[in-house]
Amino acid sequence: MVTLVTQLEHNRLANTPFALANPVFTYTFDQLSLQRGGQFGPITLAYETWGTLNEAGDNAILLVHALTGSSHVHDTEYPDDPKAAWWNPLIGPGRPFDTSRYFVICSNILGGCYGSTGPSTIEPRSGQPYAMRFPVITIRDMVNAQRMLIEHLGVSQLAMVAGGSIGGQQALEWAVTYPDLVRNVIVVAATAALTAQAVAFSEVGRQAIMADPRWQDGDYPPGQGPDAGLSIARMLAMITYQSEEAMELRFARRPARNNVITTPSGAADLGSRFDVEGYLYYQGHALVQRFDANSYLYISRAMDLYDVSEGYPSLEAALRRLRSRALFIGIRSDFLFPAVRVHWLADQVRSLGGDATYVELDSPYGHDAFLKEWEQMIEALGVIKE
Amino acid sequence: MVTLVTQLEHNRLANTPFALANPVFTYTFDQLSLQRGGQFGPITLAYETWGTLNEAGDNAILLVHALTGSSHVHDTEYPDDPKAAWWNPLIGPGRPFDTSRYFVICSNILGGCYGSTGPSTIEPRSGQPYAMRFPVITIRDMVNAQRMLIEHLGVSQLAMVAGGSIGGQQALEWAVTYPDLVRNVIVVAATAALTAQAVAFSEVGRQAIMADPRWQDGDYPPGQGPDAGLSIARMLAMITYQSEEAMELRFARRPARNNVITTPSGAADLGSRFDVEGYLYYQGHALVQRFDANSYLYISRAMDLYDVSEGYPSLEAALRRLRSRALFIGIRSDFLFPAVRVHWLADQVRSLGGDATYVELDSPYGHDAFLKEWEQMIEALGVIKE
Repeated sequence: MVTLVTQLEHNRLANTPFALANPVFTYTFDQLSLQRGGQFGPITLAYETWGTLNEAGDNAILLVHALTGSSHVHDTEYPDDPKAAWWNPLIGPGRPFDTSRYFVICSNILGGCYGSTGPSTIEPRSGQPYAMRFPVITIRDMVNAQRMLIEHLGVSQLAMVAGGSIGGQQALEWAVTYPDLVRNVIVVAATAALTAQAVAFSEVGRQAIMADPRWQDGDYPPGQGPDAGLSIARMLAMITYQSEEAMELRFARRPARNNVITTPSGAADLGSRFDVEGYLYYQGHALVQRFDANSYLYISRAMDLYDVSEGYPSLEAALRRLRSRALFIGIRSDFLFPAVRVHWLADQVRSLGGDATYVELDSPYGHDAFLKEWEQMIEALGVIKE
Repeated sequence: MVTLVTQLEHNRLANTPFALANPVFTYTFDQLSLQRGGQFGPITLAYETWGTLNEAGDNAILLVHALTGSSHVHDTEYPDDPKAAWWNPLIGPGRPFDTSRYFVICSNILGGCYGSTGPSTIEPRSGQPYAMRFPVITIRDMVNAQRMLIEHLGVSQLAMVAGGSIGGQQALEWAVTYPDLVRNVIVVAATAALTAQAVAFSEVGRQAIMADPRWQDGDYPPGQGPDAGLSIARMLAMITYQSEEAMELRFARRPARNNVITTPSGAADLGSRFDVEGYLYYQGHALVQRFDANSYLYISRAMDLYDVSEGYPSLEAALRRLRSRALFIGIRSDFLFPAVRVHWLADQVRSLGGDATYVELDSPYGHDAFLKEWEQMIEALGVIKE
């Protein structure tokens, strides 16, 4: 097995102002057996770490990012800036993910575009990006790739695995697939499987990307991808990450202050522009600058395909495997991963003899609350005591 | 004023199997003062009628269709087939909209593509379709055009105006703008103004249409429009017309039985196809066959722009104008026009001295329930007694 650790050569995408505060390493291994069949490799994972692994190798915390996230979960240079890294306020000495006691690991997921192998990676054989020749990957594949990484790092057992959204799906999958490797699991705003409605929203976004003529069946030159399609997909996703309540609080029916940002289509406003529209154009525009459209297709599809019971006789059989102490965190106003379904999952685990706690964030911010409600998140994470 | 009544020359769009059961007439008038300024004309409205107008001209019912609807609200040939016309089960002798006592009128709205003047209409001056040279129209403009029609038909007072969704917005606008012309108003699944979330969904759909290169700034040749974009817009809209609950009941995570229908983008399925995805492709495909993309842009925008208080000092000042007996019907699971907001509107009218009743449909079917829950609709409409 090739084990190559080098500092990541920052590409255009990873080269954000904050991405330099901590070294980003990579680990490459030969191949992985995929859940849907076949072998795939070589696979590189880009990752960052904070704190120190103990001699027993059992004080590691694995944090898993959401759809368009990266390994940059914490920023030591700007530890108090929530925008500097995606779970920044939760990490550091004395914080829930305590870097003075734990070795915190976060890797860009398989399929991503922040240094890990994904559709934008050059396929060694052809010298071209994989694009749509990349295999259909699953949450379990992402977890299995992470397992290779933690083994490489000398981790014998994970003190915690935690993540929200697709990160929560991976945390759950970790605890089900490797029950003996995970002491505590924290599943935030994630369920056993997406609802039909969530799959439907997801597919509308993908169709917008693939209908963009610049997508070219995935074979767009770097930097010349389906910007309009990806921007539209992001606009839609941003609605589903929020809530009616949050959008009323923030935007209501206020007109946009200006129309500086062009629409994804380039078309003129029809009548006038609402503030919420200007905001969505901005969000679409911002994602296009930092994310690969094919990665978006593959990762969002992995979310849709995920069903924790896949490969087991039943959901109960899958959940009965858990040995970890489990904390499930739902969000009152989340309509992508409804709180009632997160709650139900926690109840299922408990009814099967597992050690599961459910906490609900009383937030109007919808799905995204796990990236915003710091006080409530810190309080919720207090349930996990080691 | 030119008053020309002719039987509609059925165009490709109106030529559905059921559209022939009742004659479709047209009425053309010279011009209309638009709410946002300027004069526009000539304007043709396509309409159908059932029953007979009495001598006093005060037994007319005006029914107003939803976004992609037409004048075909009732089908005398297939009166018991709910699919033959959009409110078919509610109309006929002895039904809530009783054609043995009332003269029922339904017109295709201004901006539509089922015989009334809209963006696909040939602009007399240029000999080309208006396309995006069509003016931005509002709900009030639609109502004012309908007023020209009922005057032409000899109606002195409307016994009822009723509609759902954008039809409900028009019903409300009728009662506020012409309080003395409307004895009873029935506002179904509509509110005083769309939420930011609903505007946002609407705009994502429009961007999908306008980002389609076949849109060509609106100047596509007839039959060669932005099919992929319109299909994607429809897929998204169909999600918002339903509910998480309804989609779980109908689709859950079942795989599609086949993948006969091509995706809007033409791209292959990524991994596998869910039943809900096949359904949405079908819905997108079906709309493209029967609806004009530019009409979709203008009418959906009119929904967004609608605010019943526009032009009045306050919402209260607008609602205080009502003289009609008002029935507001909300739908428990509607997230586009939330029941709580329909209820609130009814309460506002009552608190201002109006005669308003609120009835809620206890349905899992979301916004579309007003086109599905016939028994509950009939019961709710029983509140209006003349």
